[in-house]
Amino acid sequence: MEAGARGSIADVAGVSVGHCTLNDGDVQTGVTVVRPHDGDVYRNKVPAASCVINGFGKSTGLVQVDELGVLETPIALTNTFGVGTVANAQTHSACEINPMIGRDRPSVNPLVFECNDGYLNDMQAFAVQEAHYRDALAACSQDFARGAVGAGRGMSCFELKGGIGTASRIAHIEGRTYVTGALVLANFGRLPQLTIAGDHVGRRLHAAKQTKIAPEQGSIIMLIATDAPLDSRQLRRLAMRAAAGLARTGSVYGHGSGDIALAFSTAYTVAHNAAFIAMPPLLADAFIDPLFQAAADSIEQAILDALFSAESVTGRDGHRRISLTDALKTQP
Amino acid sequence: MEAGARGSIADVAGVSVGHCTLNDGDVQTGVTVVRPHDGDVYRNKVPAASCVINGFGKSTGLVQVDELGVLETPIALTNTFGVGTVANAQTHSACEINPMIGRDRPSVNPLVFECNDGYLNDMQAFAVQEAHYRDALAACSQDFARGAVGAGRGMSCFELKGGIGTASRIAHIEGRTYVTGALVLANFGRLPQLTIAGDHVGRRLHAAKQTKIAPEQGSIIMLIATDAPLDSRQLRRLAMRAAAGLARTGSVYGHGSGDIALAFSTAYTVAHNAAFIAMPPLLADAFIDPLFQAAADSIEQAILDALFSAESVTGRDGHRRISLTDALKTQP
Amino acid sequence: MEAGARGSIADVAGVSVGHCTLNDGDVQTGVTVVRPHDGDVYRNKVPAASCVINGFGKSTGLVQVDELGVLETPIALTNTFGVGTVANAQTHSACEINPMIGRDRPSVNPLVFECNDGYLNDMQAFAVQEAHYRDALAACSQDFARGAVGAGRGMSCFELKGGIGTASRIAHIEGRTYVTGALVLANFGRLPQLTIAGDHVGRRLHAAKQTKIAPEQGSIIMLIATDAPLDSRQLRRLAMRAAAGLARTGSVYGHGSGDIALAFSTAYTVAHNAAFIAMPPLLADAFIDPLFQAAADSIEQAILDALFSAESVTGRDGHRRISLTDALKTQP
Amino acid sequence: MEAGARGSIADVAGVSVGHCTLNDGDVQTGVTVVRPHDGDVYRNKVPAASCVINGFGKSTGLVQVDELGVLETPIALTNTFGVGTVANAQTHSACEINPMIGRDRPSVNPLVFECNDGYLNDMQAFAVQEAHYRDALAACSQDFARGAVGAGRGMSCFELKGGIGTASRIAHIEGRTYVTGALVLANFGRLPQLTIAGDHVGRRLHAAKQTKIAPEQGSIIMLIATDAPLDSRQLRRLAMRAAAGLARTGSVYGHGSGDIALAFSTAYTVAHNAAFIAMPPLLADAFIDPLFQAAADSIEQAILDALFSAESVTGRDGHRRISLTDALKTQP
Repeated sequence: MEAGARGSIADVAGVSVGHCTLNDGDVQTGVTVVRPHDGDVYRNKVPAASCVINGFGKSTGLVQVDELGVLETPIALTNTFGVGTVANAQTHSACEINPMIGRDRPSVNPLVFECNDGYLNDMQAFAVQEAHYRDALAACSQDFARGAVGAGRGMSCFELKGGIGTASRIAHIEGRTYVTGALVLANFGRLPQLTIAGDHVGRRLHAAKQTKIAPEQGSIIMLIATDAPLDSRQLRRLAMRAAAGLARTGSVYGHGSGDIALAFSTAYTVAHNAAFIAMPPLLADAFIDPLFQAAADSIEQAILDALFSAESVTGRDGHRRISLTDALKTQP
Repeated sequence: MEAGARGSIADVAGVSVGHCTLNDGDVQTGVTVVRPHDGDVYRNKVPAASCVINGFGKSTGLVQVDELGVLETPIALTNTFGVGTVANAQTHSACEINPMIGRDRPSVNPLVFECNDGYLNDMQAFAVQEAHYRDALAACSQDFARGAVGAGRGMSCFELKGGIGTASRIAHIEGRTYVTGALVLANFGRLPQLTIAGDHVGRRLHAAKQTKIAPEQGSIIMLIATDAPLDSRQLRRLAMRAAAGLARTGSVYGHGSGDIALAFSTAYTVAHNAAFIAMPPLLADAFIDPLFQAAADSIEQAILDALFSAESVTGRDGHRRISLTDALKTQP
Repeated sequence: MEAGARGSIADVAGVSVGHCTLNDGDVQTGVTVVRPHDGDVYRNKVPAASCVINGFGKSTGLVQVDELGVLETPIALTNTFGVGTVANAQTHSACEINPMIGRDRPSVNPLVFECNDGYLNDMQAFAVQEAHYRDALAACSQDFARGAVGAGRGMSCFELKGGIGTASRIAHIEGRTYVTGALVLANFGRLPQLTIAGDHVGRRLHAAKQTKIAPEQGSIIMLIATDAPLDSRQLRRLAMRAAAGLARTGSVYGHGSGDIALAFSTAYTVAHNAAFIAMPPLLADAFIDPLFQAAADSIEQAILDALFSAESVTGRDGHRRISLTDALKTQP
Repeated sequence: MEAGARGSIADVAGVSVGHCTLNDGDVQTGVTVVRPHDGDVYRNKVPAASCVINGFGKSTGLVQVDELGVLETPIALTNTFGVGTVANAQTHSACEINPMIGRDRPSVNPLVFECNDGYLNDMQAFAVQEAHYRDALAACSQDFARGAVGAGRGMSCFELKGGIGTASRIAHIEGRTYVTGALVLANFGRLPQLTIAGDHVGRRLHAAKQTKIAPEQGSIIMLIATDAPLDSRQLRRLAMRAAAGLARTGSVYGHGSGDIALAFSTAYTVAHNAAFIAMPPLLADAFIDPLFQAAADSIEQAILDALFSAESVTGRDGHRRISLTDALKTQP
């Protein structure tokens, strides 16, 4: 399948991404924000659904997404110990725009995903502050960096440098064209598992390194955006297909890896106060397969994008993750 | 069924509860902590499971509880906007005891439940601080206050004063005796729904008040402890029975009410580092019905306990919730 | 809340119900069919969702309902050992209308619910035949019998005679009127639990009988129809509210009782072959509470309807269940 | 990872497999039975859990497996229209051994999985009879055929001949050795997706054939057996890893494909009547990764085994599926 113009999740019209990167010795972390549209997500909620592939994770906000089938804040990514603070920042941010939240209106549901970047980042420094969320939010753009940036700054993937990756795929269904985009925070996998387009690259790299296999303590967050008109039930199905893209890179959804996918549609929004929700004609499930393929393919591509985009990083206690590019150079 | 000696969740041996109450004008809120045992819950994890009856809620930690079937922190309750800060406090607290968390060891999963106390409490003041969690934790005891205390300080229930309630029931199964205890943070319901032992008290009180029916924006958190040897699958079944106790008080699990139950067993713990988990003989499901009855009965009783224990409170912008006791006095 | 004109699930326009009753000595069983509309459900699928309150049950078809959010056959109820045969009958029936099913078209998903009527009925006689499904289907009407009929013929409830019950409630939301109807196959509960409008009738009846408490081996199937425009996510929420109605009658969802609810909407259908599904404006979740109340109330009422409608029945090996009406007469 | 001696699910001690194959013109179908142990599964239930990867399927029995975490019949596989009859056969078979089932004892939960073999088999002939289940059960052995046999007789996979495949992997954990085996009923995929060890074989075969891509109407059932001591929560995690093995062969869990996994452990059984379940020490989740790898690897291998074992078959209306081996021979 063909990619969109940017080859990123921002090929889905309206979606933008911003980073705030903390790069200071033992602190190698940050915040990444994905905005599903430019408006107020609390007032114009976005149809969404999640799929927990492996629930060893501390993300917050999924209980309500599952029940109500909508997002009502931008999506934030950060390190495990940053979740509470970024959730607070999301609540503050929503209240600034809608001062009646938690007073005469229902409260707001912060949506924060996390991976554990503790190998490169001193999580116990609790470096992520509310201002970093606001900075990432303000930085949102259709053009954004990839690799060791934002929440991806300190992440590891297949014992190499991981981080933020993105990709898109275009599907043609019944004469219409739909864009599906993926953005991942890739922080999972043991080196011998790494598989690129079917090639067991990781085994060769691992043999060259001759190090001991460490148990996996990673995670991956996989976001899927589409402009196809789907409801939350269908978006949950789309999110499940992230598992296929992830598996192609060698993952078996390791015990210690919180592998969580979330899919959202930009085809319509759900107004906060309306008594009735006007729905576009929804794409029938019997015609959904090209989107499933697009989701799996773009997730796989986004993971590889994270690996190939990330630079080598030295962080906490001198721990170092080299980039895949560097690893391939030095391999015999 | 008979109650335990204390008539509280602390009748389950090892369980203790502590509050930190904030009572200062527009700030009427707090933190309540339930410790499943006196030790380090990260190292000696507690079998547990949750049941989301209605997922309009912002509680954090359930993804991992569902996947791994254990708690690894004390259970914290607070207001909706306090979740992030209390989660941070739990992480700090765990790292103090186990400095390698998030470094050479996996991170820790904060478990924080919430209800929206925005009618009486100015949630936007973000009054809950990390120290309040530590204070509630330090205050944990088998003897603890009920009603408008801790996380229950600002809660409303059936448009009356709600808060913390607790109860216990004793079951005899195959010659053994098991204690099941409940603790609720009751913040749900519209007045006309209130039903006590089958009596539609709320309708009479509502008729006397002649106020307009407000949409429900509450929630209830229902914790169930048992000393019966159950695994997480069985504890999920036990948690589901909270829905029966809740329904008896008049609730239909209103849209805006995040109704979430969590059950845990004190019969054994899961050691953090062990390769094999020694299991006690588990109670067979075919013999579990008395525990289901105990769970439903103690949840119903705990809700009534919250209503009858809570004093009238005036809070944010002069909003006032009168206690059930006061309401019954003034009713013709 | 007010009931509809018939006080039955058929108050929801288009819904009809038919029974085939087997009453012959040790064979006391049957089939009940609920048609969501008069047309071909395979070609015009019906939005639906289930909620498994307690999964000790052998119903078939729920995996696909959960995934796709639609029914594609009428709903059939029968005894536990009749599920396979009735599923076959549904498949045959669908293939007669659509001969390409399982050839050039996808196969069809039979939807059969069951309760265990083994106390009154010799289930091992495997008396239910495919013709009985066809007879019940042909008998579908807006006017239908209640009590010890159809699938309800051999059912027990609170150790009294159970069976088929039905009820309806009317909700007014934002100037529109919606009908919600319930139909139950009631076969659950131990006598001391029976609670009618808050009165513990069962305890008195049990004290008078002085029999031993038997473990529960029942079940209840709870169907909810509504003409409100809801999607499958919302219908799952509606189905969950059956748990509240059930609890009010005294149930704690006993281990041995397969307590399963299914809700469907008649507000629109999903065409089999369409690439896009035209959707009506959906009722917003924030306005759904009157439907939740209607669902809980009509389920409670339907259970009482089953108890008050059922006549006393003698069946297998001379086992006898007396009706609630008879039990109340003979009580001191 | 190394395979077991047989390279089949029967490398897990106690597990046996039997087929009944129907090969008669338009009828190309059958039944396959997997016995988790040689005894009475009703009296000695087997810990188990399922994972519904894509729920477009008509399998029966999963509601109770999910609730109670055990199997209580052998596992049966057949075509979609055979489910009802095979479920009846399982019930009859259980009642023969335990005549009080459905009388003084709880009923039994038939567990039947299916795929749609309608391309090669005339499903509307309803050829599968109860005797075929009994024949497959009687044929159970540690040595059993693969490919176009039993339930696999009429199945298609990647538009080639599919059917039954099996594999095993050995894991070493903390000084112990565990065998994990897989058996699949492979009936999924479109030809261009077929990927073998990372090689996109299907694209080349498809290019050579130059046929139109058909929408997927298949399914795959994936069974995983292990002798590791796991409980049902952990077995659900193991079952989820089937999704990784499946994805490696090119699947994106197509809409029309009912992709369902079930995992069971032979390390202990759950006695039907006991009040307490003696549990072995369970393998801790933190040490489970080699089993996850074994599950994914053995599922991938079992799918390839089905493809390489199946002979070309001509069935209904002259429809023909050629074997992968034949397809590779004729390819330029």
